[in-house]
Amino acid sequence: MKQSQLFTKTQQEAPKDEVAKNAQLLIRAGYVYKEMAGAYTFLPLGWRVLQKIKEIIREEMNAIGGHEMHMTALQDKATWVPTNRWDDAVVDNWFKTELKNGTELGLAFTHEEDIAHLMTQYLTSYKQLPFYPYQIQLKFRNEARAKSGIMRGREFFMKDMYSFSKNEEEHNYFYEKTKQAYTNVFNRCGIGDYTYLTFASGGSFSKYSHEFQTITDAGEDVIYINKEKDIAINEEVYTDEVIQDLGLSKESLIKAKAAEVGNIFSLGTKFSDAHETTFTNEEGKPESVVMGSYGIGPARVMGTVVELFSDENGIAWPEAIAPFSVHLISINADEQAEALYAKLQEDGVEVLWDDRDARPGQKFADSDLIGIPHRIVISPKTIEAGGVEYKKRTEPDANIISVEELLTLVS
Amino acid sequence: MKQSQLFTKTQQEAPKDEVAKNAQLLIRAGYVYKEMAGAYTFLPLGWRVLQKIKEIIREEMNAIGGHEMHMTALQDKATWVPTNRWDDAVVDNWFKTELKNGTELGLAFTHEEDIAHLMTQYLTSYKQLPFYPYQIQLKFRNEARAKSGIMRGREFFMKDMYSFSKNEEEHNYFYEKTKQAYTNVFNRCGIGDYTYLTFASGGSFSKYSHEFQTITDAGEDVIYINKEKDIAINEEVYTDEVIQDLGLSKESLIKAKAAEVGNIFSLGTKFSDAHETTFTNEEGKPESVVMGSYGIGPARVMGTVVELFSDENGIAWPEAIAPFSVHLISINADEQAEALYAKLQEDGVEVLWDDRDARPGQKFADSDLIGIPHRIVISPKTIEAGGVEYKKRTEPDANIISVEELLTLVS
Repeated sequence: MKQSQLFTKTQQEAPKDEVAKNAQLLIRAGYVYKEMAGAYTFLPLGWRVLQKIKEIIREEMNAIGGHEMHMTALQDKATWVPTNRWDDAVVDNWFKTELKNGTELGLAFTHEEDIAHLMTQYLTSYKQLPFYPYQIQLKFRNEARAKSGIMRGREFFMKDMYSFSKNEEEHNYFYEKTKQAYTNVFNRCGIGDYTYLTFASGGSFSKYSHEFQTITDAGEDVIYINKEKDIAINEEVYTDEVIQDLGLSKESLIKAKAAEVGNIFSLGTKFSDAHETTFTNEEGKPESVVMGSYGIGPARVMGTVVELFSDENGIAWPEAIAPFSVHLISINADEQAEALYAKLQEDGVEVLWDDRDARPGQKFADSDLIGIPHRIVISPKTIEAGGVEYKKRTEPDANIISVEELLTLVS
Repeated sequence: MKQSQLFTKTQQEAPKDEVAKNAQLLIRAGYVYKEMAGAYTFLPLGWRVLQKIKEIIREEMNAIGGHEMHMTALQDKATWVPTNRWDDAVVDNWFKTELKNGTELGLAFTHEEDIAHLMTQYLTSYKQLPFYPYQIQLKFRNEARAKSGIMRGREFFMKDMYSFSKNEEEHNYFYEKTKQAYTNVFNRCGIGDYTYLTFASGGSFSKYSHEFQTITDAGEDVIYINKEKDIAINEEVYTDEVIQDLGLSKESLIKAKAAEVGNIFSLGTKFSDAHETTFTNEEGKPESVVMGSYGIGPARVMGTVVELFSDENGIAWPEAIAPFSVHLISINADEQAEALYAKLQEDGVEVLWDDRDARPGQKFADSDLIGIPHRIVISPKTIEAGGVEYKKRTEPDANIISVEELLTLVS
């Protein structure tokens, strides 16, 4: 894409009311626009990043047998009464609205009730089980305060998968598979080294649930990490009993602030009991289906990446989720830049060409702020020196390489 | 995909309150689930179709220079006051909700105001123009009645593109390009032959707007078609003056019911005046930017396709948007079917394999209902006859062909 065609512009300052580093940088670089606290528009650059994260999630969910679908945001009160979660005193972050005739509706903050109810239409026999529907869909949560930028939205995308199994054994098998799939997602998004499988409160149907917590000061959680075993304990269940149960010792655990980028949860039959989501078992008797739920917030991943991979000059995207792979900057060499731009695109390289009529200093500053992994400068000086100037966003030094070397490097 | 892994099942009957043929068939075949009137969940089969339609739209919008982004559903009252569209007496289909602190919010039914306001952050100079952001995003409309199935939702996806141009000439050039892009979309989705560029009311800034109307009894509009010129007039502007203006005669026009699958609209400076969305022109003076808006409803396209391409046995999808290309039905030949299933997938053919332990009659009936374009039956009988039985969903006769012939046919 030519940068001159991008309507967004970099900004010196983020809005004064924006306190989160991730949103400050993303706003300044033209990735997101703040509609209100907790609600961000994804501008073309930001949408490219978010789509890449969503695509990685999609691939990993499909690989373990997930089937994508899409449920509605508008929710019928009747669907939420059986579990008592319609009540604002029980769930304090509903957005509610109503039809013209006064019928109350809610905007889904999650979809356990909806999918448990929906499955009563389709599930009859144990022969159909297990299955794993998921969606990547908008959720709405009426947060009293929303100060974490795109890491905690009032409106945000969520990948939520639900598992339906005939018994605990079948459930546990899939639950373990999702652990690996989640690990793959966070590795591919570049935050694997900072992300820990974290033991958290399990609710009424299992001892623990598991969170994927990424170490960052921007996180809202506190966890205790054991580096050797690559696991952690959430502060909420950090007791002598749990530490012992996991075969750990207090001395081996390091306290850290972290952001929950994913979670997996055994639901047992809590929702299927409430909605009578049953199947006929091998003995011909009705039984409640065993459920699990598995969430990842793509924008929270994106915000966490920005918190982790940025410096005083801007963002430094990991390759796999960068909006473009190469940032081509031309300085008084439009013709040569155009040819290189065409050649890179021909080779399938995603390239943003800064073709604007702007000062070199502005172009360099914008490039650092936007944070594309590979920066190429082409100018009469680099051409005379034998090619282009190449610099990685994460490295301080630039050097001259030939166009052939460049193509090998980035293709 | 193996059909045994699909949690959905076909149903003999649609819900009694479902009056629209498109939704009746889509519910019965397991494409959608009705959450409430006007709100449908897209099940895995339905989501595949909708994603294909969205991808066709995306490709055509990108081809004319569109840049994808994503705005929020939650809307600030302040954004809608300048055009007076916050008022429920002016816009009668808002869903409204509120923050914990009582701040009123709306759920976007369209995004003209939002994007006009957003652009005040980015637009400064004529040098940036033109540009064409678009999104494929959820819209919410509090329809008093919602009886057209997925063709008129209270919650639905909309592709909405907005053009920003420095003057009418630049605007008109893009406006004409979108006409062709829209024609491409509807041709690729299989409804081109039934879809007419239709002259409709233009509002205050242009003589006409243009709708793309597809002939179907399920439509809510009435249009007058001139087949020779391949255009139509919406009933709302069907006057002697307009007929004459378009160089037509009453005798050449045929009345028909139609569904509006897309529209394109010149907005002039209505929204940019209201939001002071200005740029500095070549003379250094501030000027309101000229806007256009361009909508397509992917689910309305999907519903219209079902209305047009279905018979007493079920749906018959056009190839480009079918959930799968081939429906493979095995009857007592699991091993041979598995090999063929693998081979087809290897060749990149999207195939749904009915591997269920079900009666042949049930499998055939389900196949007709689901409506995948190519049906293959493999059984001891077909193997003895030299291959597989092949039938198109749209043709009455089946015949035996070899596996090699099949691969040539569908690859």
